[in-house]
Amino acid sequence: MNVVNLKERLSRFSTYWDPKIVGELNGQHVKLAKLKGPFVWHSHEAEDELFLVLYGSFTMEFRDRSVRLCEGEMLIVPRGVEHRPVAEEEVHVLLFEPASTVNTGNAGGPLTVTEPERY
Amino acid sequence: MNVVNLKERLSRFSTYWDPKIVGELNGQHVKLAKLKGPFVWHSHEAEDELFLVLYGSFTMEFRDRSVRLCEGEMLIVPRGVEHRPVAEEEVHVLLFEPASTVNTGNAGGPLTVTEPERY
Repeated sequence: MNVVNLKERLSRFSTYWDPKIVGELNGQHVKLAKLKGPFVWHSHEAEDELFLVLYGSFTMEFRDRSVRLCEGEMLIVPRGVEHRPVAEEEVHVLLFEPASTVNTGNAGGPLTVTEPERY
Repeated sequence: MNVVNLKERLSRFSTYWDPKIVGELNGQHVKLAKLKGPFVWHSHEAEDELFLVLYGSFTMEFRDRSVRLCEGEMLIVPRGVEHRPVAEEEVHVLLFEPASTVNTGNAGGPLTVTEPERY
Protein backbone atom coordinates (compact mmCIF):
# COMPACT_ATOMS: atom_id res chain seq x y z
CA MET A 1 0.00 0.00 0.00
CA ASN A 2 2.25 2.75 -1.27
CA VAL A 3 1.39 6.23 -2.40
CA VAL A 4 2.18 6.64 -6.09
CA ASN A 5 3.08 10.12 -7.30
CA LEU A 6 2.19 10.14 -10.98
CA LYS A 7 4.63 12.88 -12.04
CA GLU A 8 7.49 11.19 -10.21
CA ARG A 9 6.71 7.86 -11.88
CA LEU A 10 6.49 9.53 -15.29
CA SER A 11 9.95 11.01 -14.72
CA ARG A 12 11.43 7.50 -14.51
CA PHE A 13 11.10 6.77 -18.23
CA SER A 14 11.15 8.61 -21.51
CA THR A 15 10.16 5.98 -24.09
CA TYR A 16 7.01 6.39 -26.17
CA TRP A 17 4.25 3.78 -26.58
CA ASP A 18 5.80 1.79 -23.75
CA PRO A 19 3.23 1.59 -20.91
CA LYS A 20 4.41 1.03 -17.34
CA ILE A 21 2.28 -0.63 -14.68
CA VAL A 22 1.94 1.54 -11.56
CA GLY A 23 -0.99 -0.21 -9.88
CA GLU A 24 -3.10 -3.35 -9.95
CA LEU A 25 -6.57 -3.86 -8.49
CA ASN A 26 -9.51 -6.13 -9.17
CA GLY A 27 -7.75 -7.74 -12.12
CA GLN A 28 -7.17 -4.34 -13.71
CA HIS A 29 -3.94 -2.46 -14.34
CA VAL A 30 -3.24 1.21 -13.89
CA LYS A 31 -0.58 2.20 -16.39
CA LEU A 32 1.30 5.33 -17.32
CA ALA A 33 2.43 5.98 -20.87
CA LYS A 34 4.07 8.68 -22.93
CA LEU A 35 2.76 9.05 -26.46
CA LYS A 36 4.21 10.86 -29.45
CA GLY A 37 3.40 10.44 -33.10
CA PRO A 38 0.78 8.13 -34.62
CA PHE A 39 0.10 4.69 -33.13
CA VAL A 40 -1.30 1.71 -35.07
CA TRP A 41 -4.97 1.10 -35.76
CA HIS A 42 -6.19 -1.63 -33.42
CA SER A 43 -8.98 -2.85 -31.19
CA HIS A 44 -9.17 -4.98 -28.06
CA GLU A 45 -11.47 -7.96 -28.36
CA ALA A 46 -12.47 -8.25 -24.71
CA GLU A 47 -11.19 -5.13 -22.99
CA ASP A 48 -12.60 -1.65 -22.54
CA GLU A 49 -9.81 0.89 -22.20
CA LEU A 50 -9.73 4.19 -20.34
CA PHE A 51 -7.42 7.06 -21.31
CA LEU A 52 -6.94 9.96 -18.90
CA VAL A 53 -4.68 12.81 -20.05
CA LEU A 54 -2.23 13.98 -17.39
CA TYR A 55 -0.16 16.29 -19.61
CA GLY A 56 -0.61 17.62 -23.12
CA SER A 57 -3.30 16.65 -25.59
CA PHE A 58 -3.86 14.20 -28.42
CA THR A 59 -6.38 12.99 -30.95
CA MET A 60 -8.15 9.66 -30.72
CA GLU A 61 -9.11 8.60 -34.20
CA PHE A 62 -12.00 6.24 -34.86
CA ARG A 63 -12.96 4.95 -38.28
CA ASP A 64 -15.87 7.40 -38.51
CA ARG A 65 -14.67 10.40 -36.48
CA SER A 66 -12.00 11.78 -34.19
CA VAL A 67 -12.08 13.27 -30.72
CA ARG A 68 -9.58 15.57 -29.06
CA LEU A 69 -8.48 14.84 -25.49
CA CYS A 70 -6.86 17.55 -23.40
CA GLU A 71 -5.29 17.56 -19.94
CA GLY A 72 -7.82 16.54 -17.29
CA GLU A 73 -10.06 14.75 -19.76
CA MET A 74 -10.81 11.04 -20.06
CA LEU A 75 -12.29 8.75 -22.68
CA ILE A 76 -13.40 5.12 -22.51
CA VAL A 77 -12.91 3.12 -25.71
CA PRO A 78 -15.23 0.10 -25.61
CA ARG A 79 -14.00 -3.34 -26.55
CA GLY A 80 -14.14 -4.09 -30.25
CA VAL A 81 -13.94 -0.47 -31.37
CA GLU A 82 -11.05 0.30 -33.70
CA HIS A 83 -9.01 3.27 -32.58
CA ARG A 84 -5.71 4.99 -33.18
CA PRO A 85 -4.14 7.55 -30.84
CA VAL A 86 -2.21 10.29 -32.62
CA ALA A 87 -0.11 12.72 -30.58
CA GLU A 88 1.39 15.66 -32.48
CA GLU A 89 3.39 16.55 -29.38
CA GLU A 90 4.37 14.47 -26.37
CA VAL A 91 1.44 13.57 -24.15
CA HIS A 92 1.28 11.69 -20.85
CA VAL A 93 -1.68 9.44 -20.14
CA LEU A 94 -2.98 7.21 -17.40
CA LEU A 95 -4.62 3.98 -18.60
CA PHE A 96 -7.10 1.77 -16.74
CA GLU A 97 -7.70 -1.57 -18.36
CA PRO A 98 -7.84 -5.29 -17.65
CA ALA A 99 -4.51 -6.90 -16.84
CA SER A 100 -4.91 -8.95 -20.01
CA THR A 101 -4.75 -5.88 -22.29
CA VAL A 102 -1.96 -5.71 -24.87
CA ASN A 103 -1.23 -2.24 -26.18
CA THR A 104 -1.56 -3.04 -29.86
CA GLY A 105 -4.64 -5.26 -29.40
CA ASN A 106 -5.47 -7.26 -32.53
CA ALA A 107 -2.88 -5.47 -34.66
CA GLY A 108 0.37 -6.80 -33.21
CA GLY A 109 3.55 -5.56 -34.82
CA PRO A 110 6.79 -3.98 -33.62
CA LEU A 111 5.14 -1.60 -31.14
CA THR A 112 3.67 -4.49 -29.16
CA VAL A 113 4.61 -4.63 -25.46
CA THR A 114 3.53 -8.03 -24.18
CA GLU A 115 4.81 -7.67 -20.64
CA PRO A 116 4.84 -4.07 -19.47
CA GLU A 117 7.32 -3.26 -16.72
CA ARG A 118 6.18 -2.34 -13.22
CA TYR A 119 7.42 1.04 -12.11
CA MET B 1 -17.95 7.40 -26.26
CA ASN B 2 -17.85 10.90 -24.84
CA VAL B 3 -14.91 12.90 -23.58
CA VAL B 4 -15.32 13.57 -19.86
CA ASN B 5 -13.71 16.73 -18.49
CA LEU B 6 -13.08 15.99 -14.83
CA LYS B 7 -13.14 19.60 -13.61
CA GLU B 8 -16.37 20.31 -15.45
CA ARG B 9 -18.00 17.23 -13.95
CA LEU B 10 -16.79 18.19 -10.48
CA SER B 11 -18.40 21.61 -10.92
CA ARG B 12 -21.81 19.96 -11.25
CA PHE B 13 -22.11 19.03 -7.57
CA SER B 14 -20.99 20.32 -4.20
CA THR B 15 -22.02 17.59 -1.77
CA TYR B 16 -19.41 15.73 0.27
CA TRP B 17 -19.05 11.93 0.52
CA ASP B 18 -21.48 11.59 -2.38
CA PRO B 19 -19.65 9.85 -5.25
CA LYS B 20 -20.86 10.36 -8.82
CA ILE B 21 -20.31 7.83 -11.59
CA VAL B 22 -18.57 9.35 -14.62
CA GLY B 23 -17.51 6.19 -16.41
CA GLU B 24 -17.98 2.43 -16.53
CA LEU B 25 -15.70 -0.18 -18.05
CA ASN B 26 -14.99 -3.87 -17.52
CA GLY B 27 -17.44 -4.01 -14.62
CA GLN B 28 -15.65 -1.16 -12.87
CA HIS B 29 -16.85 2.34 -12.10
CA VAL B 30 -14.95 5.58 -12.38
CA LYS B 31 -16.34 7.98 -9.80
CA LEU B 32 -15.69 11.53 -8.71
CA ALA B 33 -16.17 12.62 -5.11
CA LYS B 34 -15.64 15.65 -2.91
CA LEU B 35 -14.47 14.89 0.60
CA LYS B 36 -14.41 17.10 3.68
CA GLY B 37 -14.14 16.10 7.32
CA PRO B 38 -13.72 12.58 8.69
CA PHE B 39 -15.46 9.60 7.04
CA VAL B 40 -16.42 6.36 8.82
CA TRP B 41 -14.07 3.45 9.43
CA HIS B 42 -14.94 0.70 6.97
CA SER B 43 -13.60 -1.98 4.65
CA HIS B 44 -14.80 -3.57 1.42
CA GLU B 45 -15.05 -7.32 1.55
CA ALA B 46 -14.44 -8.06 -2.12
CA GLU B 47 -13.31 -4.79 -3.70
CA ASP B 48 -9.94 -3.11 -4.01
CA GLU B 49 -10.37 0.65 -4.21
CA LEU B 50 -8.22 3.26 -5.94
CA PHE B 51 -8.07 6.89 -4.80
CA LEU B 52 -6.47 9.51 -7.07
CA VAL B 53 -6.30 13.07 -5.76
CA LEU B 54 -7.33 15.68 -8.34
CA TYR B 55 -7.39 18.68 -5.98
CA GLY B 56 -6.24 19.25 -2.42
CA SER B 57 -4.89 16.64 -0.04
CA PHE B 58 -6.14 14.30 2.68
CA THR B 59 -5.07 11.62 5.12
CA MET B 60 -5.96 7.96 4.70
CA GLU B 61 -6.02 6.39 8.15
CA PHE B 62 -5.39 2.70 8.65
CA ARG B 63 -5.56 0.95 12.00
CA ASP B 64 -1.77 0.87 12.30
CA ARG B 65 -0.66 3.98 10.40
CA SER B 66 -1.72 6.88 8.21
CA VAL B 67 -0.63 8.08 4.80
CA ARG B 68 -0.95 11.52 3.27
CA LEU B 69 -2.21 11.86 -0.30
CA CYS B 70 -1.60 15.05 -2.26
CA GLU B 71 -2.71 16.24 -5.69
CA GLY B 72 -1.43 13.92 -8.41
CA GLU B 73 -0.98 10.99 -6.05
CA MET B 74 -2.88 7.71 -5.92
CA LEU B 75 -3.31 4.89 -3.44
CA ILE B 76 -4.87 1.44 -3.77
CA VAL B 77 -6.62 0.14 -0.65
CA PRO B 78 -6.86 -3.66 -0.92
CA ARG B 79 -10.08 -5.48 -0.09
CA GLY B 80 -10.53 -6.27 3.57
CA VAL B 81 -8.30 -3.47 4.84
CA GLU B 82 -10.01 -1.08 7.24
CA HIS B 83 -9.55 2.54 6.28
CA ARG B 84 -10.91 5.98 7.01
CA PRO B 85 -10.35 9.03 4.80
CA VAL B 86 -10.02 12.28 6.73
CA ALA B 87 -9.97 15.58 4.84
CA GLU B 88 -9.17 18.69 6.87
CA GLU B 89 -10.04 20.82 3.84
CA GLU B 90 -12.10 20.05 0.76
CA VAL B 91 -10.46 17.52 -1.54
CA HIS B 92 -11.52 16.14 -4.92
CA VAL B 93 -10.78 12.54 -5.77
CA LEU B 94 -11.24 10.11 -8.61
CA LEU B 95 -12.18 6.58 -7.55
CA PHE B 96 -11.76 3.43 -9.57
CA GLU B 97 -13.48 0.37 -8.14
CA PRO B 98 -15.84 -2.49 -9.00
CA ALA B 99 -19.40 -1.44 -9.81
CA SER B 100 -20.51 -3.37 -6.72
CA THR B 101 -18.63 -1.08 -4.31
CA VAL B 102 -20.65 0.78 -1.68
CA ASN B 103 -18.92 3.84 -0.22
CA THR B 104 -19.27 2.84 3.44
CA GLY B 105 -18.42 -0.83 2.83
CA ASN B 106 -19.18 -3.02 5.83
CA ALA B 107 -19.97 -0.05 8.09
CA GLY B 108 -23.26 1.16 6.63
CA GLY B 109 -24.88 4.14 8.36
CA PRO B 110 -26.23 7.51 7.27
CA LEU B 111 -23.38 8.30 4.85
CA THR B 112 -24.15 5.24 2.73
CA VAL B 113 -24.89 5.91 -0.95
CA THR B 114 -26.31 2.70 -2.38
CA GLU B 115 -26.97 3.99 -5.89
CA PRO B 116 -24.58 6.74 -6.92
CA GLU B 117 -25.88 9.10 -9.58
CA ARG B 118 -24.37 9.19 -13.06
CA TYR B 119 -23.06 12.60 -13.99
